[in-house]
Amino acid sequence: MGHSTDEKHEKKEMDTRSLSSSRHPSLNMAYIHKVGVPPKQNLFKEFKATVKETFFSDDPLRPFKDQSGSRKFILGIQAIFPIFEWGRRYNLTKFRGDLIAGLTIASLCIPQDIGYAKLANLAPQYGLYSSFVPPLIYAFMGSSRDIAIGPVAVVSLLLGTLLQNEIDPTTNPTEYRRLAFTATFFAGITQATLGFFRLGFLIDFLSHAAIVGFMGGAAITIALQQLKGFLGIRKFTKKADIISVMHSVWGSVNHGWNWQTIVIGATFLSFLLFAKHIVKHIEKGINPSSVNEIYFHGEYLGKGFRIGMVAGMVALTEAIAIGRTFASMKDYQLDGNKEMVALGAMNIVGSMTSCYVATGSFSRSAVNYMAGCQTAVSNIVMSCVVILTLEFITPLFKYTPNAILSAIIISAVINLIDFQAAILIWKIDKFDFVACLGAFFGVIFLSVEIGLLIAVSISFAKILLQVTRPRTAILGKIPGTTVYRNLQQYPDATKVPGVLIVRIDSAIYFSNSNYVKERILRWLTDEEEQKKVDYQPRIQILIVEMSPVTDIDTSGIHALEELYRSLQKRDLQLILANPGPVVIDKLHASNFTNVIGEDKIFLTVADAVSSCSPKLVEEA
Amino acid sequence: MGHSTDEKHEKKEMDTRSLSSSRHPSLNMAYIHKVGVPPKQNLFKEFKATVKETFFSDDPLRPFKDQSGSRKFILGIQAIFPIFEWGRRYNLTKFRGDLIAGLTIASLCIPQDIGYAKLANLAPQYGLYSSFVPPLIYAFMGSSRDIAIGPVAVVSLLLGTLLQNEIDPTTNPTEYRRLAFTATFFAGITQATLGFFRLGFLIDFLSHAAIVGFMGGAAITIALQQLKGFLGIRKFTKKADIISVMHSVWGSVNHGWNWQTIVIGATFLSFLLFAKHIVKHIEKGINPSSVNEIYFHGEYLGKGFRIGMVAGMVALTEAIAIGRTFASMKDYQLDGNKEMVALGAMNIVGSMTSCYVATGSFSRSAVNYMAGCQTAVSNIVMSCVVILTLEFITPLFKYTPNAILSAIIISAVINLIDFQAAILIWKIDKFDFVACLGAFFGVIFLSVEIGLLIAVSISFAKILLQVTRPRTAILGKIPGTTVYRNLQQYPDATKVPGVLIVRIDSAIYFSNSNYVKERILRWLTDEEEQKKVDYQPRIQILIVEMSPVTDIDTSGIHALEELYRSLQKRDLQLILANPGPVVIDKLHASNFTNVIGEDKIFLTVADAVSSCSPKLVEEA
Repeated sequence: MGHSTDEKHEKKEMDTRSLSSSRHPSLNMAYIHKVGVPPKQNLFKEFKATVKETFFSDDPLRPFKDQSGSRKFILGIQAIFPIFEWGRRYNLTKFRGDLIAGLTIASLCIPQDIGYAKLANLAPQYGLYSSFVPPLIYAFMGSSRDIAIGPVAVVSLLLGTLLQNEIDPTTNPTEYRRLAFTATFFAGITQATLGFFRLGFLIDFLSHAAIVGFMGGAAITIALQQLKGFLGIRKFTKKADIISVMHSVWGSVNHGWNWQTIVIGATFLSFLLFAKHIVKHIEKGINPSSVNEIYFHGEYLGKGFRIGMVAGMVALTEAIAIGRTFASMKDYQLDGNKEMVALGAMNIVGSMTSCYVATGSFSRSAVNYMAGCQTAVSNIVMSCVVILTLEFITPLFKYTPNAILSAIIISAVINLIDFQAAILIWKIDKFDFVACLGAFFGVIFLSVEIGLLIAVSISFAKILLQVTRPRTAILGKIPGTTVYRNLQQYPDATKVPGVLIVRIDSAIYFSNSNYVKERILRWLTDEEEQKKVDYQPRIQILIVEMSPVTDIDTSGIHALEELYRSLQKRDLQLILANPGPVVIDKLHASNFTNVIGEDKIFLTVADAVSSCSPKLVEEA
Repeated sequence: MGHSTDEKHEKKEMDTRSLSSSRHPSLNMAYIHKVGVPPKQNLFKEFKATVKETFFSDDPLRPFKDQSGSRKFILGIQAIFPIFEWGRRYNLTKFRGDLIAGLTIASLCIPQDIGYAKLANLAPQYGLYSSFVPPLIYAFMGSSRDIAIGPVAVVSLLLGTLLQNEIDPTTNPTEYRRLAFTATFFAGITQATLGFFRLGFLIDFLSHAAIVGFMGGAAITIALQQLKGFLGIRKFTKKADIISVMHSVWGSVNHGWNWQTIVIGATFLSFLLFAKHIVKHIEKGINPSSVNEIYFHGEYLGKGFRIGMVAGMVALTEAIAIGRTFASMKDYQLDGNKEMVALGAMNIVGSMTSCYVATGSFSRSAVNYMAGCQTAVSNIVMSCVVILTLEFITPLFKYTPNAILSAIIISAVINLIDFQAAILIWKIDKFDFVACLGAFFGVIFLSVEIGLLIAVSISFAKILLQVTRPRTAILGKIPGTTVYRNLQQYPDATKVPGVLIVRIDSAIYFSNSNYVKERILRWLTDEEEQKKVDYQPRIQILIVEMSPVTDIDTSGIHALEELYRSLQKRDLQLILANPGPVVIDKLHASNFTNVIGEDKIFLTVADAVSSCSPKLVEEA
């Protein structure tokens, strides 16, 4: 072993020697490594690669490669219905885990469903219906092993708020319900379409920070609305914002709160918050068909579509976030687009069987995971318990006091307020924290939709800011190495006299090309003023380190040309270091390499510096 | 000199020797360079720096630094009215250049103004009015020396189309004109506001490619509309798209085109296209006041505001593009935000003196530059010629045949079709070319607004694509160096056995964090499959080169954590190379550095490789 290390050492010595000589172009030109120009790509190939990376980045057809026809068919069926794949390896041990997890989440979901249906202004049985059909469909089509499907608080609240703006649920309950099914149908269509056309990446635009803020705000709004049942107030506002709710609460103080209700609720709430055990609660019988209730024409079609799209996107965000979290905990891959098709299909079928929008629930999925679920069979178990409940014991639920229901909902949603995450966001990224706060206050002070809008807008603003104002840095040589790094990060790095080395930290596109050019000129002006003060030699060479510049467009090349012209007027040399494959290709295509000279482009900053420093020495 | 080179050489040798020994951590730990953690910044300072970089990246207050009170006042006046700065250095030589240039652009602008006013569905004198007041104001407030101010074809067409949708100019000419002044007023307000709040970077979102396509489409649309005057057709469509226009043209073939008109037009057009000389054409007297004609309330206020905003933004884009082009040709700096305030002020004053939206004209600015203009005085000269024309010779213009006017307009707009630029765009960036084509066909087949919308949407889509699907690359060692580069660009670079080196080429944000994580895992899977086929040792170490990763947010850190967990399950080591200042700061804040271990973060890929390769050797 010692021998091999020695050998290695010797080889390294040689490497570094040849490297050091390569840094003396005047002595030995041949050793300078040229910047590679990638082989010319066929236009169609290039286009195909881009499309593939954008829409098929997960390479979904990989398992189909080199397979026979019948095998391909089986794989296709398994791709749409993953149950046929993992089902073959299913056994009793796994079923034991799934049975216990399924029973646990069923006991949790039944009272939650009843409460959430109320948030959506629907009769309680619709919550239960939505915990029967969708989980079954998901079990066949979904690929997450830990997600628990059913109605969730945030989507119920959002759906309730949006539908209420169109139809009053107390005066027109039938039309309201029909619009709810229409919205559910289109929520499913939206989800399935996004998945089918592989546009799943669109939901990535809702940032984690925005979701934390939105969820926290929605949880507080929901909890506040439960004050109605909790305090036994009769006259209560229909609006969801905190000001209207507090107005209702304090307005009814004079009429006296119902103290018995408060005691029951408070006792039960504290019981739930500490023990995490759940008791249970309408109309008997399983889901009736609702195919004929969906509006396929008329004015409500458009409204249902719009509401469904928003609710469907929010539901997707929640389900995908949950799915990804648990998949990474158990280390399996989740195909986002396939998940979306599964969720979409389950909501489309749901809308035809009296269900409203279902998705993955944060609280129940966590319980499912903790109770030891193995596969989506736990959803089937839960579904069976819900059928039995619907068929036999629903009439008993009518005796459940409202205060208890409110307590159940409060205890469920309170977990959505994730202080730890908010603190971490504050620590890591202040801008993210603003997005988080914006969504939070938008939801509690204005409305659920506006909170969502604020969250999305701030997320977009952040992306735009990132692309318009990329970072630039001045580099210096780290003592004892040939490595050039950001002077801010490595204060002991030293500048090379007469040379300014600037690194651009982003692709150069139309949105930032002018900024980049002007920023570099400003670095130069700053530096020149500094040199004047310090009586140091003036700057003769500007080296632009292009390693992080992954792409450049026509505006970017214009900006470089303008930079070059400005430098020429000031009698300064422009040198580029390490342009990437795409960039060097485009610099060639636009003839810019000939304008500045091929010999002004180097593989590394170190090469560039060593090639020009002899000249500086000569002139000194 | 020889001596100093020798000395340098010796120093280098030492450097490289210490470098090479630094690559043997087992021999000499002390030489490994740690990744620097930048000094902790005050939150307020950090915030101030971000705001400064976003809104004041040009450092507008630099000249005010360390000046006395009265000097600051003078500098302030000069900042708002640059004429007081350059005016003091003005002399007779400069005036000669400006006089000739001013007379030249005046002779060009008078017939153009009359034609453009027709595009905006206004009486011809309003075109001339707009070439009198706005250039004067600009001369005092603007900082470009070469731009020629006045009505331009594209903005006139856009304004005409948008206003026509609201009010019919033939039946309600007075109301139409009033709305035009209202729109002009708000165009000015929009421009001045963007400049004042330093939001000038917003116009950078209209990419160069989109502008080329939009301008080309608008030019063809304008030229087609001139067929009415050129062919002497009486009944002509009011719509601007190519299908309606061609329908009008061929529909009137049967009724016979007016051959005399065609001969005059064709002769004149060919004369103009070859000789570039212009003849001249209405109501006598200078601009009447129009303060009372602007709608400050009522339904037209909102419409005027909307139209003015769109027209103002397009006018800005054109003026800034022209200003920047000529500024870079003569190498002076242009303050985009100051320009916007100047353009805004000139349109606000213009709207009160019977002018419609004026901006910088491509064709006239080029002529101005070529004729040897020195300062904005050429605009004052032009303005004076226009006053004289308005006062004395406008009545003569009524004898100008329509065919000649059409020919003048066609010859002016045909220069807006920039084939060369389109070809260059095709060569450099195919996606840009799609944006260019989209804008072009949108304008000629649909309408000016839709073309503009398509251009903006495609530009945005490009930005979004850039942030959702950043590039990643596999690195290899370039033989004879310690430099690691993209294997695609440098096919002779070699992989290190047992190690996979991946570079992420973008900041890691919520919009791409999942993609980045999954892409890295896919690289790993691909590589492992390859190794299996080739019977090579399995991969034990994944080095992520973070140099281009300028920033990371909470979602990005989550993704890294998930990546780390996945790698742990597969018994692989995660090593980070060269995280930047912001990234290392956030990795510390989120405790991720402790999770993976401080000793797993290296300054360079070479350091990382050399620190782990002894281990690989041991195990081999």
